[in-house]
Amino acid sequence: MTSYEIRPVGYVESPLVDGAGAPKQGFEGAPEAWLVFDPGVAEGARDLAAGDDLFVLTWLHQARRDVLAVHPRDDPRNPVTGVFSTRSQDRPNPVGLHRVRVVAVDGLRVRVRDLEAVDGTPLVDVKPVIADGR
Amino acid sequence: MTSYEIRPVGYVESPLVDGAGAPKQGFEGAPEAWLVFDPGVAEGARDLAAGDDLFVLTWLHQARRDVLAVHPRDDPRNPVTGVFSTRSQDRPNPVGLHRVRVVAVDGLRVRVRDLEAVDGTPLVDVKPVIADGR
Repeated sequence: MTSYEIRPVGYVESPLVDGAGAPKQGFEGAPEAWLVFDPGVAEGARDLAAGDDLFVLTWLHQARRDVLAVHPRDDPRNPVTGVFSTRSQDRPNPVGLHRVRVVAVDGLRVRVRDLEAVDGTPLVDVKPVIADGR
Repeated sequence: MTSYEIRPVGYVESPLVDGAGAPKQGFEGAPEAWLVFDPGVAEGARDLAAGDDLFVLTWLHQARRDVLAVHPRDDPRNPVTGVFSTRSQDRPNPVGLHRVRVVAVDGLRVRVRDLEAVDGTPLVDVKPVIADGR
C-alpha cells in the first residue's frame, strides 16, 4: 500500500519530559503546555484564540510501531487488548489525539490546557472541536 | 524537521465516491461504510465490537497540502480562516478525524455509521472514544 509523509507543523513545549511520568490522558492532570507552530504555517494558525476547544494531533515519536495488543494503561491486571480498542501510544501509526483548551496566544505560540504530550513531541495537525465532542 | 511515514492499516469502503458530493461531517447524513483492515494488523482490530464509539483517523488522499487558509465549508460568504481553525480537508497534514459508531463486525471488516470519507480513503488509526468525547 502507498505510504504518506507527515511533515510536522510545529512541536509541543511542555514541562513533561518523561513519558513514564506523564498522565495517561490530558484530563488526568496534565500541566499547561505550548503548541509552537513553525513559521511556515503561520497563516494556518492565525485564527486560534483563547477559549478555543481543539483536537491536537501529535506524532508520538517515542512510541513503538510494532505493537498490536497491550494491557490497557500498562496494568497487567487488564486483559491484553487490540490496540485499536485502546489509547495506547504504541500502535502502527502512533498519532496522538488530545483534546485541549486554548488559554492564551502569543504569535506562533499557543498555550493550552490538558495536553499530556511530552516536551518536543511533533505536531501533526490542530482542528477545532465541533458539535458535541466531534 | 524530521518527517514520519504513515503506513495505512486498511482503507474505507463506502458508497461515497465523489468528495464534492459527500457530506462535510459524518453526522450530516453520511451512509454506512466499512473499515477494512489489512490482515497484518488483525490482532490490533480483534476487540472492536458492535456498539463501540470510535475515532477513525484517515489520510485524506485527495486533499491539497499547500493550503493554509480557506473559506470554511467552501462557502465564499464565510471569511477566510486559518485551516487549524477549520475542519477543511485541505491542510498541511491531511489527517481526517471522524467519530463513528460500530454497527457490525465481520472479521477484518468493521461496519460503521457516520463516516463521511470517500471510498478508498486510507485508514491511519482507530481509537476508542473515552470520557466525554475525548
